[in-house]
Amino acid sequence: MRNPQLTRNGELQHLLTIDGLPREILTAILEAATPFTVVAEREVKKLPLLRGKSVFNLFFENSTRTRTTFEIAAKRLSADVINLNINTSSTSKGETLLDTVDNLCAMQADMFVVRHASSGAPFLIAQHLAAMGLEHIHVINAGDGRHAHPTQGLLDMYTIRHYKQRFDNLVVAIVGDLLHSRVARSQIHALTTLGVPEVRVIGPKTLLPADISQLGVRVFHDMRAGLKDVDVVMMLRLQNERMKGALLPSPQEFFKSYGLTAEKLHCARPDAIVMHPGPMNRGVEIDSAVADGPHAVILPQVTFGIAVRMAVMSMLAGA
Amino acid sequence: MRNPQLTRNGELQHLLTIDGLPREILTAILEAATPFTVVAEREVKKLPLLRGKSVFNLFFENSTRTRTTFEIAAKRLSADVINLNINTSSTSKGETLLDTVDNLCAMQADMFVVRHASSGAPFLIAQHLAAMGLEHIHVINAGDGRHAHPTQGLLDMYTIRHYKQRFDNLVVAIVGDLLHSRVARSQIHALTTLGVPEVRVIGPKTLLPADISQLGVRVFHDMRAGLKDVDVVMMLRLQNERMKGALLPSPQEFFKSYGLTAEKLHCARPDAIVMHPGPMNRGVEIDSAVADGPHAVILPQVTFGIAVRMAVMSMLAGA
Amino acid sequence: MRNPQLTRNGELQHLLTIDGLPREILTAILEAATPFTVVAEREVKKLPLLRGKSVFNLFFENSTRTRTTFEIAAKRLSADVINLNINTSSTSKGETLLDTVDNLCAMQADMFVVRHASSGAPFLIAQHLAAMGLEHIHVINAGDGRHAHPTQGLLDMYTIRHYKQRFDNLVVAIVGDLLHSRVARSQIHALTTLGVPEVRVIGPKTLLPADISQLGVRVFHDMRAGLKDVDVVMMLRLQNERMKGALLPSPQEFFKSYGLTAEKLHCARPDAIVMHPGPMNRGVEIDSAVADGPHAVILPQVTFGIAVRMAVMSMLAGA
Repeated sequence: MRNPQLTRNGELQHLLTIDGLPREILTAILEAATPFTVVAEREVKKLPLLRGKSVFNLFFENSTRTRTTFEIAAKRLSADVINLNINTSSTSKGETLLDTVDNLCAMQADMFVVRHASSGAPFLIAQHLAAMGLEHIHVINAGDGRHAHPTQGLLDMYTIRHYKQRFDNLVVAIVGDLLHSRVARSQIHALTTLGVPEVRVIGPKTLLPADISQLGVRVFHDMRAGLKDVDVVMMLRLQNERMKGALLPSPQEFFKSYGLTAEKLHCARPDAIVMHPGPMNRGVEIDSAVADGPHAVILPQVTFGIAVRMAVMSMLAGA
Repeated sequence: MRNPQLTRNGELQHLLTIDGLPREILTAILEAATPFTVVAEREVKKLPLLRGKSVFNLFFENSTRTRTTFEIAAKRLSADVINLNINTSSTSKGETLLDTVDNLCAMQADMFVVRHASSGAPFLIAQHLAAMGLEHIHVINAGDGRHAHPTQGLLDMYTIRHYKQRFDNLVVAIVGDLLHSRVARSQIHALTTLGVPEVRVIGPKTLLPADISQLGVRVFHDMRAGLKDVDVVMMLRLQNERMKGALLPSPQEFFKSYGLTAEKLHCARPDAIVMHPGPMNRGVEIDSAVADGPHAVILPQVTFGIAVRMAVMSMLAGA
Repeated sequence: MRNPQLTRNGELQHLLTIDGLPREILTAILEAATPFTVVAEREVKKLPLLRGKSVFNLFFENSTRTRTTFEIAAKRLSADVINLNINTSSTSKGETLLDTVDNLCAMQADMFVVRHASSGAPFLIAQHLAAMGLEHIHVINAGDGRHAHPTQGLLDMYTIRHYKQRFDNLVVAIVGDLLHSRVARSQIHALTTLGVPEVRVIGPKTLLPADISQLGVRVFHDMRAGLKDVDVVMMLRLQNERMKGALLPSPQEFFKSYGLTAEKLHCARPDAIVMHPGPMNRGVEIDSAVADGPHAVILPQVTFGIAVRMAVMSMLAGA
C-alpha cells in the first residue's frame, strides 16, 4: 500500500503523521524551513507563495495557540485564511465531517489545516479527497486525538538540529505523560527516523503506554536515571484533566518525581537543551527557573515552528 | 413606491429579497457569475475588484457555513473582511441594531452582509441607510427569519440554468418544510420570475403555509404524485428543532413520507437533478444513496454559490 | 524614571496611557491623524505602511466594537491582523499572561493591541518587552480595567479640535459614572495636557472618585449647574452592571438627574457639542433626541477614531 501522504512520485501530498515518512522528506522539510526563518527577520515578513490560495483552519477542537501559528504562517505566505471553529459537542446542525469537507472543497479550498479530537480524522479526510479525485487539495494534521502532531515533531527536530547540528550522536529524553500525548508519538517517530541512536522515555507507569518500548525507546521510571548524560530533554505538557485523574496522585507529587528542576537537569550533559511544546504548566512539569533558564530553547521552538509550517505549506502547494 | 433594492436608474443597490426583483436583474446576476466560476479554477483565485473596500459580515445569527461562503467571496475580490458575530440573546451591551449599523457606517463600511433571526432586518438597515443619505453602502441579505435568503435562491437558479439551459420548459418541485423556510420563498420567487411554467411544492399540511398557492405553485401532499415527471427536485433542510416539535410525528416518519429515496426519485424524469441547500440531514430529508448519487448537483450548488456571491458583490460595488 | 511609553529619544514607543504623555506627542498624534481621515474617503482605503507586519489583537476582555476599530485600522494599513480572544475566566490551559506574550513575540509579533480587565496589564507587557530586549515590539492599550483607554481619549481630542479648533478657551464637562470609567481618566489627562482651562466632572457622589478634584477638575453634583456655558459635553456610558448595583437607585432615577436631555443641554453654550464613547444606553445616560440631534458629534468620533488609531499604529511602526 502506498503511503497516503506521498504522491506517486514520492513527493509530500499531505502531512498527516511522521510515522512512515522517509528520512529524505523530513530532511527536505527541515532544509526548506531555513530560508523562512530569514523572512521572519525582514521588514516585510511576506512572500507571495500562496497568493490566491484558500487555506482553511478546520478546528474541531479549540486551540487558539496552534491555530494562530498556522494562521500567521499562511498569511505570511499571502494565502487567504478562513478560520472555522467547529464545536463538535454542540453539533446542532449535525453535518458529518466529510460533508463539511466536501462543501469546503466545492468552495475551491486549497489546503485544510485540521485539528480534531479523534485520532485519524485528518487521515480520513485525505483518504476521502483521494477517493473524490481531489488530489490537488492538501491536508495538514494540526493534532488528532492521541495520534500525531507532525508539525510539532518537525519544529522540534528543526530546533534540535539548530542547536546540536546532527542527530546521529545524541541521547534524547522525552519526559512526562506519554500515554495521552500525540506530541510524544510524533517526536519519537521523527527522532528514530532521523537516526538518533538513543531515545529515552521517562514517566510513571500509569502515564507510559504498555507497548512503548516497541517504538525503539528505552523506558525509565526514575527521572534522574533517565536524564543521565542526555543531550536533549523534551518535556511534555501535563493536561489539566489528568492532574485530578486516577492516574496521578497530585500535581505536586508529579512535580516532585517528574517536574524538571535545575537539580534534576544537572544529571544531563552540561550543554543539554530543554524543550517544551507549550503551553507550560510552571511548577507542574517544569520549574520556572528551568523554563526561563539558559538551557531552555522553548521560545526558539515557537519561532522555528512558524518557519517549519511555512515550509510545509509551500512544499504542499508546490506539489 | 420605488423598489428599495434598486437605484433610481434601476440598478441593483442592495440584495434583500428576490421578491419583486425584475427578471433582467436576475438574469444579469446569473450572467455576471459565469466569469467568476472561471476565476475559481485559476492558480491565483483573486481579483482586485473590491480592493480597499471594507465588507462587514454582520451575523446576528450564527452560521459558520454561510459566513464562510461570503468571507471567501469577498476575500477573492480582495476586500478587507471583518467578521462580527453579534449574539443578540446576550445583548449585554444593549445597543440597538441601527446604532450598531451607524457605528460601522462611521467606520466607512462599504458593504454589509447581514444574517438575522428577524424577518426584515436587512430591509430595515437598507431603509435606514437611505434615510441617512448613505446610498453608497450596500446591504446583502444572508438570510432573515423566515423571509428570504436571496443568494441561495440565485445560486439555485444558476445551478438549474447550468444543467437545464432554460427555465421556460421546466417542472420544478420543492420538497419539505416550506413553512419555516426562507430558502423556499426565495426559490419560488426566482423560479416564477424566470418563467418556470410549473412550480410544485410537496410537504405535509403542517409544514406548508396555508396561503402558499397564492405564490403560483401547485400543492402536493403525496411525494410520488408531486415528483411525477419533474425536471428539478429541490429538497429543503428539516431544521432539528422541528424534528421533535408538534408539527411532525418523528424524523423517521418524515423520511418515510417525504425523504428523497432512489425509489421516489424514480417518479421524476430520468434526467432530473436533485438539489439541497445544505447542510443535509442524511436519512431525514434525503437518503445518502441519492445525496451521493448521479442525479445530485448539491456540491456544484456550493461552487456556483461562491461565483454568484462574487457577482452580486461586484455588481453592488460598481453600482 | 523614564516614561515607559517613550524611547530614549522621546518618541512614542508604546501607547499605554495619556497620563504623563507630553503635549507635543499628543499634538503630533492628532496631526498625524488628519491625512488618514482623507484615506478613508478614497476609493481604495488602503496604505502599505504596515505591510508584512503582524498585529495581534490580544483581547482578554470581550469587546467586538473596540476590536473592530483596531482591526479595520490595521487592515487599512495592510498589516496581517490576528485576533485572539482569550477568555481568562475559563483559563483551562492556565498559561500566564507573560508566557502568552513571550510566545507571540517568538512568532515575530510587531504590535499588540491589548484589552484587559486588570488595570496595568498593558504596562506589564511593555515592561516585560523592555526586560527581554524586545523594544521593536509595540503595545497599544485598548482599555485596561478602570485605568486608561488612551485611543478613546485621543479620538475625543481630535473631535474637539475638529469642531472647536483650539483647546485653550474651552469649558468641558464629563458627565456620569466617572468612578468606573477608564475613558474619563484618559479624557481628563488629555484635556488638561492640551491646555483646556476648565474641566468639569458631573455625577452623583457615589459615582465620582473621592479624590477626583486632585486631577485638576471642578466637581458638580447638579447637572444643570455643571453644564452652564460649557463648550463640550462628554457623556459616559453607564455600565449595565452598575444599573442594578448599590451605587444607583435605578436607571430611571439616573436619567432624571444625569441623563442628557435637550432641556438640560440648553444650559450649555448654543454651539456646544455632545460626545459619547458608545455604545449608548438611550434613555439612561442620554436621550435619543440629543443623541440624534444637531449638537451630537458621536458618529464623527467613530470616524476620527479609525484615523487616530491608524496614526498611532503608523507612528509606533515607524518609531
